[in-house]
Amino acid sequence: MKRTERVGAMIQILTGSPSKTYSLQYFCDLFGAAKSSISEDIRACNNALSFMDRGRLETGIGAKGGVRFVPHISDNELVQLQKEFCEKLSDPSRMLGGNFLYTSDIFFDPEFISRIALVFARKFRNCGADYVATVETKGIPLASDVARLLNLPLVIIRREAKVSEGSTVSINYFSGSYDRIQRMSMSKRAICPDTKALIIDDFMRGGGSISGITEIVGEFNSTVAGVGVAIAGVTPKKKKIDNYTSIVFLGEIDEENKKISVLPNNDIF
Amino acid sequence: MKRTERVGAMIQILTGSPSKTYSLQYFCDLFGAAKSSISEDIRACNNALSFMDRGRLETGIGAKGGVRFVPHISDNELVQLQKEFCEKLSDPSRMLGGNFLYTSDIFFDPEFISRIALVFARKFRNCGADYVATVETKGIPLASDVARLLNLPLVIIRREAKVSEGSTVSINYFSGSYDRIQRMSMSKRAICPDTKALIIDDFMRGGGSISGITEIVGEFNSTVAGVGVAIAGVTPKKKKIDNYTSIVFLGEIDEENKKISVLPNNDIF
Repeated sequence: MKRTERVGAMIQILTGSPSKTYSLQYFCDLFGAAKSSISEDIRACNNALSFMDRGRLETGIGAKGGVRFVPHISDNELVQLQKEFCEKLSDPSRMLGGNFLYTSDIFFDPEFISRIALVFARKFRNCGADYVATVETKGIPLASDVARLLNLPLVIIRREAKVSEGSTVSINYFSGSYDRIQRMSMSKRAICPDTKALIIDDFMRGGGSISGITEIVGEFNSTVAGVGVAIAGVTPKKKKIDNYTSIVFLGEIDEENKKISVLPNNDIF
Repeated sequence: MKRTERVGAMIQILTGSPSKTYSLQYFCDLFGAAKSSISEDIRACNNALSFMDRGRLETGIGAKGGVRFVPHISDNELVQLQKEFCEKLSDPSRMLGGNFLYTSDIFFDPEFISRIALVFARKFRNCGADYVATVETKGIPLASDVARLLNLPLVIIRREAKVSEGSTVSINYFSGSYDRIQRMSMSKRAICPDTKALIIDDFMRGGGSISGITEIVGEFNSTVAGVGVAIAGVTPKKKKIDNYTSIVFLGEIDEENKKISVLPNNDIF
């Protein structure tokens, strides 16, 4: 097998399972090659990967040494993504009345959310999370993609307790967006106690849902390692949670003049 | 730039956006290379990709010619996946009573669902679907991954009409699993009329939900191009829909003897 073929196959395997550690021995066995050749191949992979700046291989992971692909998005690609996001969101045809915008097309577009997911994967790759948590429904594809990039399990908190979830823990919380008490419910089987959550959601206004998630995972002695929301409302300024990262900020929705104000988060990193 | 580096970068780009067509000119401009070199690089990519048999590059796509990565899972990997799936599902600790099994850990495990998604991507890559449809909640990560692999938009049908969905169409249907009338609701903005849906879900017993999805997308003159469910119940034998593909079949759940019968679908391709 030629080096080019080995390097191509390694890039396919490693970038196809982001953040998953493979032992060097795995590749030695796969290709029937010596460790020294595999080490050289990894350097060649990194030369190839550096061209796009969308992630690189890290070595020396684990007791026996190993290699994994750490996904990345460059500052330039991030700024471009924020620009597109602002343009998409400020389209007045999204207005639904009552300060609501239609955003399902954005959050159910696999290509677009995979780019947003990369931003959160970059931001939170070292936050020490054991799992990614979200509350149904609109943020699920995004949270699922972040979980894939960080190689973490996903936990989906439900609005209602379902028989297929077994015994559950439920809480009530106040949602400012809907101006009413809402409920969320989580299976007792969903998480191990004393672990850390990375919370991902599509939208945050006052932070009611996110603080609800914090509370419900807290019932399992789980703490929050990070919070990423794709869109954060500019108002209310005082949120129920302090630390979060958003890609963009949604300002005023002026229905009379058909104007939606959206700004990039310039302090994202 | 060396060939090895170009091939590595091309594999990263193309496998990172499955089923998305890139023009050859895109790579000529990216690498400052002639079309003849890029064509040779594509051959070298396919030599590298053939090693794992997890997909290959197709060329000559579109009017000007182009290249895209078509994901694949080999028969061997499929059989291995079915074996693991059967083992996971037949674990008696999943029993929740009332013929329900806890499966959220399986359907929220990004690595495992990405392998199931590959099976559906292989099965349905030429079915002519314009979008992937699912009904909330448990099948969303799987459906989202299938959509990503086929480069199609995702449509999530809700249980209840939400204000953030704008005006919606709703239907009632009978769910055999829950033995009651259920409701589903879809935004009028979600799909273009006269398109084709690929329906993906986690579980099907009698086919009530799937025929509900068929009915609701039919309200938009949308027809069904294919149906993929990860798990299909052996009973009832007569389903509300005729054509579907499942990865495994779930047989009897014997709570007294703590036995769950699960079989692979041997006619999957």
